[in-house]
Amino acid sequence: MHLISYDIGNDRLRLKAANALLRMGLHRLQYSVFMGELGEAALKHLEAELAALALEKAWVGASDSILILPLHQYSEDLIQFIGKAPERWDEMTGQAHTIMI
Amino acid sequence: MHLISYDIGNDRLRLKAANALLRMGLHRLQYSVFMGELGEAALKHLEAELAALALEKAWVGASDSILILPLHQYSEDLIQFIGKAPERWDEMTGQAHTIMI
Repeated sequence: MHLISYDIGNDRLRLKAANALLRMGLHRLQYSVFMGELGEAALKHLEAELAALALEKAWVGASDSILILPLHQYSEDLIQFIGKAPERWDEMTGQAHTIMI
Repeated sequence: MHLISYDIGNDRLRLKAANALLRMGLHRLQYSVFMGELGEAALKHLEAELAALALEKAWVGASDSILILPLHQYSEDLIQFIGKAPERWDEMTGQAHTIMI
């Protein structure tokens, strides 16, 4: 399981990033936070695709960033969500401890 | 180590969330993504503070959310950042694999 989040100012680049993540089957947890299972090949492909975004002219070196965080089962077991749980949240995180308000 | 991210539409609530996270010594990795060490008591306090935000009138139940993700050493070892590394990134994640562009 991986969590990937981004800060990307340019609309076109941000959309490209979101589409790349969704295409790889990641779930959108929050506007700029995605999570899901990635095989080794898929992860390599995605890393290359995202790194390429940072080479585009519209990338703002002073502020844009993408975080790629491999998650351990420990995180999946203890993850908490305050507020609206994402769609297919249960299916995604079988054992998640969700705080429903 | 914990990662905490939020989607909060209301400016005042979002600022309250950010201030609560920064006050607890978390580092701002991205606009709405924070990371840092939290002791058990600090975590409990923060969880209560954040859960209280979701009870305020300005909280939008249909879209606002806060994600609290405990991180395993595994994540800290393998974390990657594409683009601008956050301030004090090295100090924060000793062994992080950072892709600097």
